[in-house]
Amino acid sequence: MSADTHAAERPLANGRTRIDFQTEPSRYRHWKLAIDGDVATLLLDVDENGTLFEGYELKLNSYDLGVDIELADAIERLRFEHPQVRVMVLRSGKPRVFCAGANIRMLAGASHAHKVNFCKFTNETRNGIEDLSENSGLQTICAINGSAAGGGYELALAADHIMLVDDGSSTVSLPELPLLAVLPGTGGLTRVADKRKVRRDHADFFCTTEEGVKGRRALDWRLVDEVVPGSKFDQAVAARAQEFAARSRRGAAGPGIALRPLSRTFTAAGVEYGSLTVEFDRKGRLATITLRGPVAPPASAEAMVALGSDFWPLALARELDDAILHIRLNELDIAAIVFKSSGDPAEVVAYDKFLDANVEHWLAREIRHLWKRVLKRVDLTSRSLVALIEPGSCFAGTLAELPFASDRAYMLAPTLPSPASGEGSARGAGDNKPPAAIALTAANFGAYPMSNGLTRLASRFLANPADLEAVKAEREKMLDAETAQRLGLITFALDDIDWDDEVRVFLEERASFSPDGLTGLEANLRFAGPETMESKIFARLTAWQNWIFQRPNATGEEGALKRYGTGQKPVFDMRRV
Amino acid sequence: MSADTHAAERPLANGRTRIDFQTEPSRYRHWKLAIDGDVATLLLDVDENGTLFEGYELKLNSYDLGVDIELADAIERLRFEHPQVRVMVLRSGKPRVFCAGANIRMLAGASHAHKVNFCKFTNETRNGIEDLSENSGLQTICAINGSAAGGGYELALAADHIMLVDDGSSTVSLPELPLLAVLPGTGGLTRVADKRKVRRDHADFFCTTEEGVKGRRALDWRLVDEVVPGSKFDQAVAARAQEFAARSRRGAAGPGIALRPLSRTFTAAGVEYGSLTVEFDRKGRLATITLRGPVAPPASAEAMVALGSDFWPLALARELDDAILHIRLNELDIAAIVFKSSGDPAEVVAYDKFLDANVEHWLAREIRHLWKRVLKRVDLTSRSLVALIEPGSCFAGTLAELPFASDRAYMLAPTLPSPASGEGSARGAGDNKPPAAIALTAANFGAYPMSNGLTRLASRFLANPADLEAVKAEREKMLDAETAQRLGLITFALDDIDWDDEVRVFLEERASFSPDGLTGLEANLRFAGPETMESKIFARLTAWQNWIFQRPNATGEEGALKRYGTGQKPVFDMRRV
Repeated sequence: MSADTHAAERPLANGRTRIDFQTEPSRYRHWKLAIDGDVATLLLDVDENGTLFEGYELKLNSYDLGVDIELADAIERLRFEHPQVRVMVLRSGKPRVFCAGANIRMLAGASHAHKVNFCKFTNETRNGIEDLSENSGLQTICAINGSAAGGGYELALAADHIMLVDDGSSTVSLPELPLLAVLPGTGGLTRVADKRKVRRDHADFFCTTEEGVKGRRALDWRLVDEVVPGSKFDQAVAARAQEFAARSRRGAAGPGIALRPLSRTFTAAGVEYGSLTVEFDRKGRLATITLRGPVAPPASAEAMVALGSDFWPLALARELDDAILHIRLNELDIAAIVFKSSGDPAEVVAYDKFLDANVEHWLAREIRHLWKRVLKRVDLTSRSLVALIEPGSCFAGTLAELPFASDRAYMLAPTLPSPASGEGSARGAGDNKPPAAIALTAANFGAYPMSNGLTRLASRFLANPADLEAVKAEREKMLDAETAQRLGLITFALDDIDWDDEVRVFLEERASFSPDGLTGLEANLRFAGPETMESKIFARLTAWQNWIFQRPNATGEEGALKRYGTGQKPVFDMRRV
Repeated sequence: MSADTHAAERPLANGRTRIDFQTEPSRYRHWKLAIDGDVATLLLDVDENGTLFEGYELKLNSYDLGVDIELADAIERLRFEHPQVRVMVLRSGKPRVFCAGANIRMLAGASHAHKVNFCKFTNETRNGIEDLSENSGLQTICAINGSAAGGGYELALAADHIMLVDDGSSTVSLPELPLLAVLPGTGGLTRVADKRKVRRDHADFFCTTEEGVKGRRALDWRLVDEVVPGSKFDQAVAARAQEFAARSRRGAAGPGIALRPLSRTFTAAGVEYGSLTVEFDRKGRLATITLRGPVAPPASAEAMVALGSDFWPLALARELDDAILHIRLNELDIAAIVFKSSGDPAEVVAYDKFLDANVEHWLAREIRHLWKRVLKRVDLTSRSLVALIEPGSCFAGTLAELPFASDRAYMLAPTLPSPASGEGSARGAGDNKPPAAIALTAANFGAYPMSNGLTRLASRFLANPADLEAVKAEREKMLDAETAQRLGLITFALDDIDWDDEVRVFLEERASFSPDGLTGLEANLRFAGPETMESKIFARLTAWQNWIFQRPNATGEEGALKRYGTGQKPVFDMRRV
């Protein structure tokens, strides 16, 4: 176990060289997904030896990132492979314990960066469970038969309905503070205060009480929705699942589609996917993600279903998600992600119109929701985000969200024709690529809200809603650099005399700044306007947790996280800040 | 300069033994307050030798906490001593520089706790400037003739109207990130994004550009409201001041009242004020603040004015504010603040009714606004807050906000009469104090919003608005412990058999927890519900800044804050988290 929270990550288990976010049910070691008609049961039965890193065991259904990667995968499969499922029951496969939360030895030995990224991903997974309920009508019942501690209860908090067995010993608890001197940082405090609206003094008591709360008090204090005697528990859970299924809005007919393994090749230089390429410039600390546009959309919804996970918008969303997660967790030295694209923007617009035309089709809806979540993942990625909009690019509609998600967008403007040659620049014309253009579609005005509840364009034009109306009027037009700059859609339009130098200087400067400063800056500037429970989790709760993860009282050699389980009491610096 | 950010604070200058928040214009070293009819000019002309701590000079109108204490004082005096003032002009008394922001050497040498508390107080002061505009109709014009950098521009951001001289060199800038690897943490990022609604890519450019932005671009990007040629600047500022004064809602007649020096005695055991006592239990790490209730209110508004700063609600608010600040900055080992009170709750109710009856009187209004701000200061104090409601206490109306602001409130219930004696407990009856009662007034339902924009009771009963209506119906009744518990106004009612042990165990346990964990927990649980710009400053921005203040890239020996001005470049760990 590393003594230094800044030290390199501990070794991955089983000779792995990177954290992989791709899995499938046949490879799960910790979860069992069972489908019975319109009810899915997701059973947590952690294999204590199936750890992501070396050096700890996942006792008592505790989890590490590897366990959560399987959970996230299972939820995606419920969306795409099992559209007939109307309710999900989360249960434990182990007696007397639902889930003990994040594994403490894993946390104690993890680098600061891994702790932060682990919390971010697990938060995203729980938000995904809530999105599944809110937007796809698939509600979750959490059936707690045993103890749900820390992250275990935080997982329960993501459910729509929490059932607790009333057996005199089963409890819910958030013992992070008294036990480990850290926060219930996977949404726990925010969901207790803002989702379940637990009264603050009750919440204070609950979150400072190691042993947790059970039975009647758990119900009275709004910590659970139902307490049920042990003898009636299974029956009550089944009945509740039937009730929830009966009133679900999820009404997909037809079979699902298979989420086939991604086409992916890792090389020293980057990662090659079917529809995108990641290239690393390690000296410049840049990752360039080039997204490739599509050819014409299919003729019908049936043809879309037949394409399945090869359907371009779905394939690209999954690949982009995987690429972003890979960079987040495995490529810590990358300062900035540069988004480029290549293809015909008119075809991207055609795909958006195809999805709009099929908005009643379950698969089209799920693809839109997936893009929404992937774009939120981009927003929340603590790397500088830059869009370079060049000739031959296709930042249109859904793909235009990437420049809007970026901290800055640069667009190459055609050089004014020289009086001598009567031609534009070599870059603009000589290489036969069409000049850079961006285009908006209806999807930019509602399909992809950020975690603050607003679209990226609404967030962008917060100062003046008339600017938003002005760009709305330009939908489905090819907008050149000058127009895009005038409308406020890009940061700078540059001609090719300035392009190379300006972009290079900017990216070099960016890579020279303190990564921590940039993380804080971007976390503040990216989310103007209103706050939601989701944005509060990533702003308030996460920021405080990250602070605490840096404090010696938690992560120092004598801190509570390090000393847990050693028999030695932690030593605290008792001064308040 | 201390090498260790956890080290003890550097010595205070001039042999001071504590930071004192009391001052008055004749003692100002950094500000000049000039009143001309309905226009006040607050001139920043920092005495570079007038530092709070040893070891640095306040060059270029840079500031430390001492400078901000004077600013906060000046603003209070504008409220109470100069009710005829309708507009405030903030200017610099130095050529070519408005303000260089927080002094970097001061920050580099300050303990983590001092940095955090310094930022909190300066944020509160700037929020106070905005409150003065929003609720008292006294608007602020910031006239920038020179450079406004970092905290200098953040001060400008608190104004209603920012005027920048257009002389080719005067700039506004937030160079914290490129220069120091920290954030513009005194509201800067939040006000840029949420108050001025600067487009995020413009904000990104602005906040990563050391040299700042001037002239036309500053205006186009919404960073200032007006740029004026140097030759016309003074004239334009004067004209704008007259315009703002003419449309001000502030319409007080009559002279102000003098804010006389607080009656205060510091002893080893605590602090004795006119209407409250602070007692330290250093072994138990507790500060007990006992507030004393009043006798009957004055007969008329004129009598209130005649009492001036001796008028009980005003005197108590000022004393409570001073006590809280003293504990925050000078008593870092205190884990919990215990609120007690003594007096007749009926008289506290009578004062609230007196203030309500005089709601049109400027002084009554300003007193209410002062209480609002003091109570917000309590909410934001990172110590555990506990109310002990005992026989003889007077937690009624305005004072009942303290139990509602507390993390927990314990109330002593009379012991059931014993069949043998026919009497209640000794504590309830034998000492002749009336049994503990709390009472609500109209003031609890609107006068004192928290930084989330809701009253403490509305925040408390977020889950069920009917509970709020139920307590509203009980206004002006004396509520015993059982009733208060049933209504959800207190955490626990305890009889005197349990009281001593339960309270003692709770306070001991509280003092044993990690102070950092408690800070994070309380910051999350105290502010359920909506967010405002103010709450975003204290949650999102402050939490990220605190995190960065712990990161070696900023505060380590090779970090940017430590190396600033040494000629050595900072060395960064370039890994992103």
